[in-house]
Amino acid sequence: MIKLYHYPISPNSRRVWITLLEKGLEFELVELKLDGEQFKPDFLAINPFHHIPALVDDDFNIVESLAILDYLDVKYPTPSMLPSNPRDLAIVRMVEMATINELLPATMPLTPVLLGLPGGDAEKIEQAKQKISTVLKFFESLLDERPFFGSENLTLAEPVAGTIVPWLRGDSFSWNDYPKLAAWCDRLIARPTWQETQATPKMIEAFKSRMAAMMA
Amino acid sequence: MIKLYHYPISPNSRRVWITLLEKGLEFELVELKLDGEQFKPDFLAINPFHHIPALVDDDFNIVESLAILDYLDVKYPTPSMLPSNPRDLAIVRMVEMATINELLPATMPLTPVLLGLPGGDAEKIEQAKQKISTVLKFFESLLDERPFFGSENLTLAEPVAGTIVPWLRGDSFSWNDYPKLAAWCDRLIARPTWQETQATPKMIEAFKSRMAAMMA
Repeated sequence: MIKLYHYPISPNSRRVWITLLEKGLEFELVELKLDGEQFKPDFLAINPFHHIPALVDDDFNIVESLAILDYLDVKYPTPSMLPSNPRDLAIVRMVEMATINELLPATMPLTPVLLGLPGGDAEKIEQAKQKISTVLKFFESLLDERPFFGSENLTLAEPVAGTIVPWLRGDSFSWNDYPKLAAWCDRLIARPTWQETQATPKMIEAFKSRMAAMMA
Repeated sequence: MIKLYHYPISPNSRRVWITLLEKGLEFELVELKLDGEQFKPDFLAINPFHHIPALVDDDFNIVESLAILDYLDVKYPTPSMLPSNPRDLAIVRMVEMATINELLPATMPLTPVLLGLPGGDAEKIEQAKQKISTVLKFFESLLDERPFFGSENLTLAEPVAGTIVPWLRGDSFSWNDYPKLAAWCDRLIARPTWQETQATPKMIEAFKSRMAAMMA
């Protein structure tokens, strides 16, 4: 039996959640409150780094979301979510890693703006926008006539980048410059697996309140 | 022809360099000075994020070291450096990702100590040691009777973790608690590919001077 320890609004969790759904697997969702619950011995025995997501498949514990995705793709290969061609695989991996190492850190200073909260450091916000634009341009350059990164079918690049990039739609970026990426976003958010795992308005409000309290 | 854009003392570069050597590939090393050279248009055309390493294989540019490693393993599969069994693969991926996300950030405050430089924030150094100990314990738990992580043969986990963990040998950590990991370190640093890519005393001195200047 597969158990996913997660926090629904976290993109790190959601990428695993979507992948489990896309593969049609049966699993149990265990929500952690992240109010200290993650430091309790039971969870530390699963993930000594006390982060979500963590996945337990029978007696095997896996931490680190990208490791979990690769495990799932080899253990449950239907449908396969990794291309076999070296260039296409490299495209998927570049999208995964650039999301983690470039895009996610750059979105941090921008989170209040995206949530419609006041405040934030104008200079840092501008720098963040520049960095994000570089990533969006890079992603646009990696898309071709196929509907997904390096593939005719959904790959692991989609749950990784596709739980962040659609949040950036709107006026902050010149989306006319990224037509393939915009169409890719539309394609993803229309999927049942994206809709089923979408944060509810209530979750977003709770997150906004927490954010506002932290900034105050 | 393969070209690796790199900076010899960077573990991010060295993991690719070692993998190219372990696979017996022919390649050209292009050293970047990281004194601003990485922001020049020629390099930005290869890597818009202006980081090393970057790899060019004929006309194909690949950025992000872990993406490069996966590309090399599929394009040049002899010897293969990824296990096919899901659990073993998950072990390799956990080691790769925990090195990037947990170990490397924790080594930052400790770098002056490891280089024998004075100064540094005692509290931050202590926290860093705790975090690193958690990673070492986790890695020890993932090793079994086999010589490498999840494999009888060298995997991608080795160039990733094996260019950091051996730097941590010495008095800062209770290595008696990690006998399998200690033996794994010894096994790696004895390999010709580790020795060929080892930082020279001159490079280490230059790095120490730069570090000392930054701290002053």
